[in-house]
Parts: sequence; structure tokens; C-alpha cells
Amino acid sequence: MLTDQISFADRFDGITGSAIREIFKMIAKPDMISFAGGNPSPSALPDLAASRIAQEVLQENGKQILQYGATEGYPPFLQSLKTYAEDKVGCPLPAILPVTGSTQAMDLLCKALINPGDVILVEDPSFLGNLQCMRLYQAKLVPVPSDENGLLLDALEDAMKQYHPKMLYVIPNFQNPTGKTLPADRRGPIAKLAAQYGVVVAEDDPYRDLRYTGRHLPSIKSFDTEGWVVYLGSFSKVISPGMRVGYMAGDPLIIRKCTLGKQSSDLHTANLTQAIVDRFLREKLLDTHIPAICADYARQLQAMLDELSLFPEGTKYTRPEGGLFIWVELPEGIDTKDLLPKAVERHVAYVPGTHFYAMGGHENTLRLNFSNSSLEQIHVGMEVLRDVFRNAW
Amino acid sequence: MLTDQISFADRFDGITGSAIREIFKMIAKPDMISFAGGNPSPSALPDLAASRIAQEVLQENGKQILQYGATEGYPPFLQSLKTYAEDKVGCPLPAILPVTGSTQAMDLLCKALINPGDVILVEDPSFLGNLQCMRLYQAKLVPVPSDENGLLLDALEDAMKQYHPKMLYVIPNFQNPTGKTLPADRRGPIAKLAAQYGVVVAEDDPYRDLRYTGRHLPSIKSFDTEGWVVYLGSFSKVISPGMRVGYMAGDPLIIRKCTLGKQSSDLHTANLTQAIVDRFLREKLLDTHIPAICADYARQLQAMLDELSLFPEGTKYTRPEGGLFIWVELPEGIDTKDLLPKAVERHVAYVPGTHFYAMGGHENTLRLNFSNSSLEQIHVGMEVLRDVFRNAW
Repeated sequence: MLTDQISFADRFDGITGSAIREIFKMIAKPDMISFAGGNPSPSALPDLAASRIAQEVLQENGKQILQYGATEGYPPFLQSLKTYAEDKVGCPLPAILPVTGSTQAMDLLCKALINPGDVILVEDPSFLGNLQCMRLYQAKLVPVPSDENGLLLDALEDAMKQYHPKMLYVIPNFQNPTGKTLPADRRGPIAKLAAQYGVVVAEDDPYRDLRYTGRHLPSIKSFDTEGWVVYLGSFSKVISPGMRVGYMAGDPLIIRKCTLGKQSSDLHTANLTQAIVDRFLREKLLDTHIPAICADYARQLQAMLDELSLFPEGTKYTRPEGGLFIWVELPEGIDTKDLLPKAVERHVAYVPGTHFYAMGGHENTLRLNFSNSSLEQIHVGMEVLRDVFRNAW
Repeated sequence: MLTDQISFADRFDGITGSAIREIFKMIAKPDMISFAGGNPSPSALPDLAASRIAQEVLQENGKQILQYGATEGYPPFLQSLKTYAEDKVGCPLPAILPVTGSTQAMDLLCKALINPGDVILVEDPSFLGNLQCMRLYQAKLVPVPSDENGLLLDALEDAMKQYHPKMLYVIPNFQNPTGKTLPADRRGPIAKLAAQYGVVVAEDDPYRDLRYTGRHLPSIKSFDTEGWVVYLGSFSKVISPGMRVGYMAGDPLIIRKCTLGKQSSDLHTANLTQAIVDRFLREKLLDTHIPAICADYARQLQAMLDELSLFPEGTKYTRPEGGLFIWVELPEGIDTKDLLPKAVERHVAYVPGTHFYAMGGHENTLRLNFSNSSLEQIHVGMEVLRDVFRNAW
């Protein structure tokens, strides 16, 4: 029997699958109010524009789009992407690689850099999908302490001295899961520390354009003079996650190694999805699309914050300036993982915060997403959560 | 300086990138006659049907297609794919996973199974893209001898006994690069040996539908009673390689592990490209498309064989019943790698055979592709090659 005999690779030891992906299956019911995912609102998904554009690009350039492409990217998209990304990141980007969602960027960066046992510094908490990616490369994850605004520079330097890490993974804007934004005056120093200690920084920035208040801050990459910062970008939150188009930009030596890795990961990202995003950029559709999304999401965020203000005393939560998530801390002793089934029973879902911590713990925390629920759903769902949590107070 | 300080992961030691991908760059000129790639003919790429279908699926189901999808696949495609693949493979397929081109299937299988130093048995020669994938997982590649029809069973059993391999990689139909087809009576025994020695068989079968003479043979998977054979399928040769849609099917335990691995490789394959292939299957477009492609390719194959018959005595070559490639063996002492620049100078390209051998050598061999050249180009290009090689005789 295969089941008795087969042995899988060591990299899967202790890997059970993304907690979020498993929660998704549990809550796949039509009448569920889900604060669990990181999904864009259906109204933010430009299906009619995509339909028109898909037809046009295939009619105009179908033979090239359907043929094998270069691992380095679909040529017209490489052009429009460079202009777009340099404007966004705020500095020249000597090398840029389109990838199959920024999930793949993280995978390629680990493939290029990580030997088993290598240390990666991570925010605590951090995005669990990428924590799983790092674990599959058998990296040792070392969490770096934060304050209410994000990574602490002293703690970061201490960790670099002590652990000689290969990489630092950081989400500077509207962090997943906390919604925190790293202050401008910590960004330059992070780039400097990276160069000083020879640490690659993976600056993961999928939410930047979803800013509802305040001003855009300069990227960590824009302070990088030596090439240690790799910027990971995504079109998942501003066009479509289902298309799986993202990019990574940084030092040509690192991007070249990632390109070699991509040859045997998926050869190249689908030309069609690259061509569709290319057309979105060339037609400047994001100039009107992003403000429209932001106006909706800002209202949803405010509605959820209003509901949280009604939670019992002792409830702490972040007040993000953008992004998709609010982070909630309940009094110690309340276990949000234990309470999840009770909430799901009443058709409301969230993600217990413990999953986002590299070392677990923090059972009294949870992540709430507001982008994928209507104002009415936010009102009803938050009332349910208030009730579920109050009973455990 | 980053360039002095950065150290990449050990898995890249000795990896220089796919020889084919590098040759592609060298020959990217408009007037090149390329026998080098494995590209479908432009006339075989259904751009107008794809254009219509892309518009339709996004109009009808755009919100779901643009949203995050399940790692397990786009639900309508999972249905149509199962029916299609079971008919093709000739047996029930209890688990099937859509992937981002069958390149990703190989990557996920290695991710699931291979620890550094594990042995993978390979045909000699074999598809160099997948050899590179195995090397990036730091597998030890052990070539198994073939005769003019493919793998030798005695040699295979000896290798299983001696090396305790984790995997056997085999392309049974119109093999890449040789064009050979494994006889029906060796297929059942391979499945049996795999179960006996506990070896996973990766049966890579992208060319099956491109058969120009003879009858379809049963898959190795169809003889598999224990679950050790994983079937890798592709739509690259019958619809479009640029869409990056393939699949892997096999034992649920293995497919589940590959699905976990895919969560952090690219989360899921683009819903749009899955939806387009789904519609091709549901509209039964392949029923007319494949015979049309095959009629053209059969003529191109015959034209190239006719040209080869004019080559000097001592030229050996395969006479494939399908697929995309002819394998040529020149007299010993002629080095096709040395001669490639001379051919390219005269605007004709091929791939030197040595790249396909896990251990190198065999410098007197080359791979010719006929699908991506017109009859006229085949005539002109083969005359050039005859001349280039004759001068080295």
C-alpha cells in the first residue's frame, strides 16, 4: 500500500496547510458574513473592463499571447510595469520580474536565498501565507518586536547582530494582519541596517494604494542604495486576485536568480493575464478605479471601527489608515480560536490571531477584514461577535 | 557591495539556466528558421476562439473569475477536466489538481517528495527543463538505459534495486527529445515495478494527442493499482502554452501534499485561463481542433524526414509516430554544440543533444522541432544544416 510506504520530503514536517484556506472551506456557505479573508469586494472587481480587454488583446495580439512567452515577462507589460512601479516605489528599478501573484515572489526569493536553517526575521504577527512559504524552505523564523507603529529599530539591529539572518520580511503599509503602517522615519534606517548587516529585505507592499486617510509614505526600497531591498508588488487588491499577477523588483543579481528559479516553477506567468494588466495600466484605468474602491472601503472601515467602539471595555484595536484589516486584542484569557465555531454557528467568521504569530500564542487576538462585507453585514456581523465575545468576558 | 556579500542558496550551485531558454535569446531574430523550441505552430493557436471565450466567461462569471480562487482549482473546470482526463488516461482519477502549466506539476511533485540527495531515475536523454527542476531540488539524477523504443525493463529494475529511488520520470509518448514511444507491453510492468519497489512514477504526457500514425497506447497510469503513478497533463500543445494550464492526477495523498505546496507557490492557477480551457472542453472544440493540428504537423514531420533521408550516410534519426521532435545522431566526433553558431549565422537553429543527457556527453546528437516551421522553411533550413554538418564529416 502506498499509504504505508510513501515518505514525503522533510520540508513538509509540521506543515498542515494555511489556516485561512482551511477556515475558508469551513465557511463556504452562501449566508456567511465573512470577516476572515482578504478578498476584495465583488463591486471592486472590474469584470466588464476585463471582459472587453481580454477580447481586444487576444484579437489584436492573440498569436503572441497564446504562444510560449519569456520567463522574464510579456514584453509590452514589462514596459508599462516599469513606468508604473518606478512611480509607485519612488526610485529607479533596474530589474523587475512579473510573477504569478506576489505569493510567487516570496517563493522565488526563498528559493534563491534560503538554505535549511537560515534565519528570516519576521514581524510579529505577520502574514501567515508567507510564513508557511518560509517554513517550507525550512527557514528558522525569528520574530522581531514591534510597538503600536511597527518594527522597533533597536530590536531589529539586535536581531541582525545576534542571528545573522538571510532575510527580513516586512509589510510596511497597512500591515497584514495588524493594519499598522511603519512610520517614515523608520524606513530609511531599515534600508541602512540591511546594507550594514548584509540582509535582504523583502518589502511586501500589496496594500499601498488602498489608503483612506493620510499621505503616502516613501518605500523602504526608495532609501536603498546598495540593492539589498527587494520590492514585492501585487495587482490583487487593485485589479483582481484571481488573475494572479504581481511583480518583484530589485537588484539585477537577485532578480536574475529568481528568474532562473521561475524557469522551473511555472516557466512564465500567463501572457493573457499580463496583457490584461498591461492594458489596465496603459488605459490608466487605475486612476479612476482606485479612488472608487477607496471611497467604499473607507466607509466599510469606519463602520467596523464604529461597531468596535461598542465592544466591552478592555477591547483594544488598531485604527488603520488603509488596507483591508483591523487587528483586535481582547482581554487575556479569551481564546478566539475556541470561540470561532460559536461565531461560525451564527454565520460570522474571522481569523484567530494566533495563526499569524511565528511562535503561536496570543490567543486573545483576531483579525477582521472589512472589504468584503456590506455596511449592513458589518453591522449584523459585529453585533454577533460582540455577543459571542461578551459571553466569554 | 551586495555583489561581494550576497550568497545564494546551495540549490543553485551549478545551475546556469535552461539551455533552451538561452538559445531562444540568441536566435530571437525575425528571419530565423528555428528547429530549436517546442512551440506550437502559430496556425495551431486558436486566438479567435480564445478571444470570444475570454469575453464570454468574464461577462458571465467575471466576479468569481476575478476573485481569489481555491488552490484545488476553478470548480467548473474541475468537473470538465475530470471527464476529459479520465477518458484520455483511461482510468478513474480519484484526485486531480489544475496547475500553472505541467512545469509546475513537476515542481510540486519534487517539492512534495524530494530531499537533497534523493535519487530520481530519468530516461537518457530526457526533457532538460524538468532535469533542471530536479537539480534545483538537489536530487541525484540516475539515467536508465533505453533501446530504440524507450526504457529497458531489466535496466529499470536493476536501477530500482541498486539506488532505492524516490521517483522515476518518464515521457511515454513521442518522448522529448527523442520522439520515441514506449511500447504497450512495457507500460504495465513499469507500474508493477513502481509498486513493488515503492517508487513514484511521474508520467509526463503532453504530446499524447499529437499522434499522426498508429493507435493510442494505454497510459502507464491505467495499469496502476496501488497509486504510485502520477499523471502529468498539459494543454500547452493542444490549446496554448502561453495560458499555462496543465494538471496532475493521482493518489489523493500525493495530490493533497502537492496542493499544500501549491498554496505557497502561487496560491492558485489564474481562474481566467482555467475558465477558458474549461469552455474549450465543454464546447468540444478539441474534437475538431486536434485533427486539424495533426494534419499539418504530420506533413511537417514527413517533410523533415524526407530532408533527413538526403543527409550523408552515417546519419541516424528517429521516425516518430507523433509529437514535435525528431532526434538525430551524427557520426561520433561531430560536435553539434560547436556547430550551432555556424548554423545560427546562417539563420537556422536547433538544440544540441548533449543538454538532454543528465550526465552530458553525446555531443554528436541534436533535437529538431518541426511543428513551428513551414514546409518551405523546413526545406531551406534542413539544406543549411546538411551543408553545415557535411563540412564537419
